[in-house]
Amino acid sequence: MARYFITGGAGFIGSNLADRLLADGHQVTVYDNLSTGQREFIAPASRQKGFTLIEGDVLDESRLGSAVAGHDFVFHLAANADVRFGTDHPRRDLEQNTIATYNVLEAMRLAGIKRIAFSSTGSIYGEAATIPTPEDAPFPIQTSLYGASKLAGEGLISAYVSGFGFSAYIFRFVSILGERYSHGHVFDFFHALAKDPTRLRVLGNGKQRKSYLYVKDCVEAILTVIEKSAEPVAIYNLGTDEYCQVNDSIGWICGKLGVNPERQYTGGDRGWIGDNPFIFLDTKKVRSLGWKPRLTIQKGVEKTVEYLTANPWLFERR
Amino acid sequence: MARYFITGGAGFIGSNLADRLLADGHQVTVYDNLSTGQREFIAPASRQKGFTLIEGDVLDESRLGSAVAGHDFVFHLAANADVRFGTDHPRRDLEQNTIATYNVLEAMRLAGIKRIAFSSTGSIYGEAATIPTPEDAPFPIQTSLYGASKLAGEGLISAYVSGFGFSAYIFRFVSILGERYSHGHVFDFFHALAKDPTRLRVLGNGKQRKSYLYVKDCVEAILTVIEKSAEPVAIYNLGTDEYCQVNDSIGWICGKLGVNPERQYTGGDRGWIGDNPFIFLDTKKVRSLGWKPRLTIQKGVEKTVEYLTANPWLFERR
Repeated sequence: MARYFITGGAGFIGSNLADRLLADGHQVTVYDNLSTGQREFIAPASRQKGFTLIEGDVLDESRLGSAVAGHDFVFHLAANADVRFGTDHPRRDLEQNTIATYNVLEAMRLAGIKRIAFSSTGSIYGEAATIPTPEDAPFPIQTSLYGASKLAGEGLISAYVSGFGFSAYIFRFVSILGERYSHGHVFDFFHALAKDPTRLRVLGNGKQRKSYLYVKDCVEAILTVIEKSAEPVAIYNLGTDEYCQVNDSIGWICGKLGVNPERQYTGGDRGWIGDNPFIFLDTKKVRSLGWKPRLTIQKGVEKTVEYLTANPWLFERR
Repeated sequence: MARYFITGGAGFIGSNLADRLLADGHQVTVYDNLSTGQREFIAPASRQKGFTLIEGDVLDESRLGSAVAGHDFVFHLAANADVRFGTDHPRRDLEQNTIATYNVLEAMRLAGIKRIAFSSTGSIYGEAATIPTPEDAPFPIQTSLYGASKLAGEGLISAYVSGFGFSAYIFRFVSILGERYSHGHVFDFFHALAKDPTRLRVLGNGKQRKSYLYVKDCVEAILTVIEKSAEPVAIYNLGTDEYCQVNDSIGWICGKLGVNPERQYTGGDRGWIGDNPFIFLDTKKVRSLGWKPRLTIQKGVEKTVEYLTANPWLFERR
């Protein structure tokens, strides 16, 4: 039995992780400001023994410091996770991703906690020349404030490993799908089609190639790496062994919903500033530990549509 | 004639750059809080037409914002440049390097200025597996808070290029030597030998291999890249085509001073936490633009000893 602390634990990935750790008999403290996290996501967890919710912000150093004390391991998942709108508010990624990560590291150091897992992103590879992109790809050039802020988080964590004897697990995710998914292209398309199933506005030309991973496969991968990896800074890409076009995903969403909208493309090979037209991560490293995903991208998209269909309240919160 | 703004322009590299730009007939505004910068360093510049000093801190957003307005190009050199003591005050690198860089970028964006040059560091390669280390080396793992904070600065700048149409010149320096040098191993050894020429304490085993570059060669390289490079994010290593051992450097310093101390090694292959036992950057890229250094490392060390000998006031400031 270990005592886990999850920042952003009421969010999409965090709440799925909390459920899984509680099912394994661990204690779990969720630290979340409930800005994008949802009480509904942690309702099942809150009925389990060993669960604690602390409402708090990762930018509130003093609250964070007292909350983290007494834990063995920190999953730092709290973040501004929206890559698209970075240029609308440049300070947000700096604060919520970079400075927040510093605050978590300092709180841990002062509390004598040395094990951290961090949700980074495939976006830090920028527009990678090597695809599928391995963890040791050529030194990338950032193309988004989101990627830059996560890169900064990775750097800080690695420096705490070197400087203060921490051990760290850094996960570079593709986009994640599944139960409690509440932002991203499936959410936006689902929402738009619920309002008007006859047409669908698509950012870019729809040919952007992207990778996705099902959230329960993601949680499984995280726990596999933490159990099996022995590197001081363990960096792992997480994704499936495939990619799809935005158009494929639209087809699966529409098929599941039984609609056939006219697709209206905004044009160009990028949907927004910093949109990466081809994201596909090399996942040999995590597979070498024996993990593999159970769901394909198509199944992940379909599960997500089922989840959104069953949870219309999510759209009322926006 | 262009209007240049230099953060940290009263510092070691900044003041040498200011002199050079003024000699070329440009206008130069130095923005410096004079914490490590020195009035003496900008005394020659201040006698030139076109020179302005604004005392201010890069963490003071409002002062920075009004100071930067009306310039064409920003050299962002203000930084906490001490890699060794990061773990004594972990917040310092975050604030003075990462957040400060964000402030400079935001001030530029609001003022409509889009060209920036940035002093990064070879330290961001961590303990590189590839030596000499090229700009596109495999994605490195940070080993110091200083390196992490500069990596974060690079990421922010690159994201502003992508998001806001900036153009950027990023320089990954080895350690710089020469006139107005005021911190680092030559300074420390010179200072120690002035107090006691009979013995010298050396951090590590003295076999750490390091690279150095003479400051006027560095300024020349910076201006060559800005003139000739056309990449939106131009990233260049700056260094000489050689490296030396700490022991070599001690020999040159002692030779110049005419002393022969007993060397007392603290031992181990690293002088401090995060010390990199072998730094040697591949400088093919900058050389391909026609630049090459005029001084060897030995000459650079000897020039530095001459400068320190002629400027004992520097040690009284510490």
